[in-house]
Amino acid sequence: MAKSDKTSSATDQRESGRLQVISAIRKAEEIARIDIAKITDFSPATVTSITSELLSAGLIEEVAVDEATRDTKRGRPRVALKIRGAAHWVAGIKVSNKTATVALMDFEGHTFAEFETPLPKSQLSGEDMVDFILHSLETATSEAGISISDLSGLGVGVAGIIDALRGFVYWSPSMTERNVDLRDMLENVIPLPVFIDNDANLVAKAEQLFGMGKSHRDFIVVTIEHGVGMGIVIDGQIYRGTRGCGAEFGHTKVHLNGALCRCGQRGCLEAYVADYAVLREASIVASSMGDETSEKKLEELFNAAKAGDPLAKSIFQRAGTMFAMGLANIVNIFDPELIILSGERMQFDYLYADEVLEVMKKSVVQIDAPLPQVKIHKWGDLMWAKGAAAYAMEGVTEHAIRKISQDAQS
Amino acid sequence: MAKSDKTSSATDQRESGRLQVISAIRKAEEIARIDIAKITDFSPATVTSITSELLSAGLIEEVAVDEATRDTKRGRPRVALKIRGAAHWVAGIKVSNKTATVALMDFEGHTFAEFETPLPKSQLSGEDMVDFILHSLETATSEAGISISDLSGLGVGVAGIIDALRGFVYWSPSMTERNVDLRDMLENVIPLPVFIDNDANLVAKAEQLFGMGKSHRDFIVVTIEHGVGMGIVIDGQIYRGTRGCGAEFGHTKVHLNGALCRCGQRGCLEAYVADYAVLREASIVASSMGDETSEKKLEELFNAAKAGDPLAKSIFQRAGTMFAMGLANIVNIFDPELIILSGERMQFDYLYADEVLEVMKKSVVQIDAPLPQVKIHKWGDLMWAKGAAAYAMEGVTEHAIRKISQDAQS
Repeated sequence: MAKSDKTSSATDQRESGRLQVISAIRKAEEIARIDIAKITDFSPATVTSITSELLSAGLIEEVAVDEATRDTKRGRPRVALKIRGAAHWVAGIKVSNKTATVALMDFEGHTFAEFETPLPKSQLSGEDMVDFILHSLETATSEAGISISDLSGLGVGVAGIIDALRGFVYWSPSMTERNVDLRDMLENVIPLPVFIDNDANLVAKAEQLFGMGKSHRDFIVVTIEHGVGMGIVIDGQIYRGTRGCGAEFGHTKVHLNGALCRCGQRGCLEAYVADYAVLREASIVASSMGDETSEKKLEELFNAAKAGDPLAKSIFQRAGTMFAMGLANIVNIFDPELIILSGERMQFDYLYADEVLEVMKKSVVQIDAPLPQVKIHKWGDLMWAKGAAAYAMEGVTEHAIRKISQDAQS
Repeated sequence: MAKSDKTSSATDQRESGRLQVISAIRKAEEIARIDIAKITDFSPATVTSITSELLSAGLIEEVAVDEATRDTKRGRPRVALKIRGAAHWVAGIKVSNKTATVALMDFEGHTFAEFETPLPKSQLSGEDMVDFILHSLETATSEAGISISDLSGLGVGVAGIIDALRGFVYWSPSMTERNVDLRDMLENVIPLPVFIDNDANLVAKAEQLFGMGKSHRDFIVVTIEHGVGMGIVIDGQIYRGTRGCGAEFGHTKVHLNGALCRCGQRGCLEAYVADYAVLREASIVASSMGDETSEKKLEELFNAAKAGDPLAKSIFQRAGTMFAMGLANIVNIFDPELIILSGERMQFDYLYADEVLEVMKKSVVQIDAPLPQVKIHKWGDLMWAKGAAAYAMEGVTEHAIRKISQDAQS
């Protein structure tokens, strides 16, 4: 729909300005107005005008700069701005293959409560998924002593192929049905704006807002747990592809007619690197592994490899080599500034051991310039829920910014 | 360097506005002011002001709308705007492994002269490359009855790993040396702004400005000739990666420890799909192939396959299957709107035969949404040089737009 020229264009510019200012404050944590002007390239007058709107809307607040650390010689201001934590609270929920994790987060990005609950079944129908998410959210908020109506938004992360803009689940390993309009279904029973995305994109969002991606415009996050995920940040934005389902790193093929993947195809990276890929070779190593949980089996296999068991070692080595090849392909295609390997499975250091990174380095196109940085971020289960909350917070921020324009016009 | 606030910010915005308007005119070929306002979302007053600047600078011109086709009922304007072809001329040169092709192009994008010259050797030193490019440019301009000083810019496309922003060649199969500051060397002897990029990026640029990419914000171009190249356009911009050397599709690995690639590594896509990969299996098929040129050998092999020779067929089938796997990986990662398969080798239709596209479709993540379009664009050798000219034209346009601001300030 074509916008009806001048007014809406000016409003768009104003909203984009507010977003830039609030992002600069969020990134800096505490920042003086004059430094916001430097970062955003806005005039000091524009920054003063925008920050006063944000202050009136209660989204940011003033804090006194510590006199002891203030650079008085250069006449630095006595007052800085920060995000007002109490402005909005959001919830993030990550549904994985066995549990759901809920994080409650304030507007500053502090997680003030977390909650974990087991999934009733490993795959749920659309309706059961909605019930389960509602139930988890109710329990988490009531344990934190608040109610759902105290929240301003809900972020939901699920594995699979998600069209984030439409909140639509094409396919998820956690669901029995395809093509579920999950956002609409959730918004029908939960009185909050709901934001749904692929779980790896949410980790990328969390890295961008609170983690190692904070100071990078372009980076890539690779996650490994039950599957292999990727989140791509280009020019500060999550790259989603045309159908909202790019970045399917786990299903790039590394071997023609290779190992069988749970997606039904052969030779996917995931079929060599994910938990289930490693586990299906585990039975050959130790007969004692019959009735144990997957976690336990994986841990035993890992310990056997560490103790020098050659078969166990060879399982991890193959996974590591394939992972190195996949990472090299990412470097060859994206040439990113930074690759963050994120997630629980990073504890199995075969995946990022020096020798794996060496293989990767040898498999990328060789030029006389430094390779992308590869950083490891082990943040455990809560990471995913934090990412979901971060995603909701971004949406809530945009709503709040738009509301300022609407209030001004009415 | 931080920009010194308000003035430069306003200038930046003005320049960005001019660029948007001129792009809209270029894309539409002929367009009324009111339609520019619709497309750019600028107010009619802003469009009038910007177009009058562009008219004064001689970059665009007014044309009468044909009365017979004009929609008089809706009061459509009598005057449209178009790019003024004579505003600037640029040259584009593509250095391939055997020849250099030069295209001379006017500001509207019409190629008014083309010229081809064989390379003295298949690999040149930096200095010899500069001499060769200068010589080709002198010959091409003099044959066209103009001189180098009539041009406003030179675009140069070379295969290899190029940092386009710095005009720096990390490595090229056409050069004996690594790390050549080719732009600076060329600008020392040719009195023009020089713009250098990887050849596949230049094809993407040509597709964007004049070809199948015209109406797409996001698309990917894959080229096959002596090597395999890729150009990625995201949100209207060529994606280059951090070191200026992303999109190395040809060297993504499709097979661990696979076929030997000319880059020295194993299992690269190029090692299965490029000319040399196909040719090294050719000798097994026909003993008559001893002294022929590569082109001739490839053609004979292709004809043998078409005639049903099973060995020849199997060579192309393997190349096709590997190519399908590589394309599927691109779809899985980028989920682009459109993939354009571009270049001379597309005449060997094994590469895009229906069955290859079928394999690709089966190798991408399956969801209930239409797959990206795959289009074939066979434009032959001149395509590359046109891309180089298009790239130069983009740079020249930016210079011209900046000059308007400078003239206004002085």
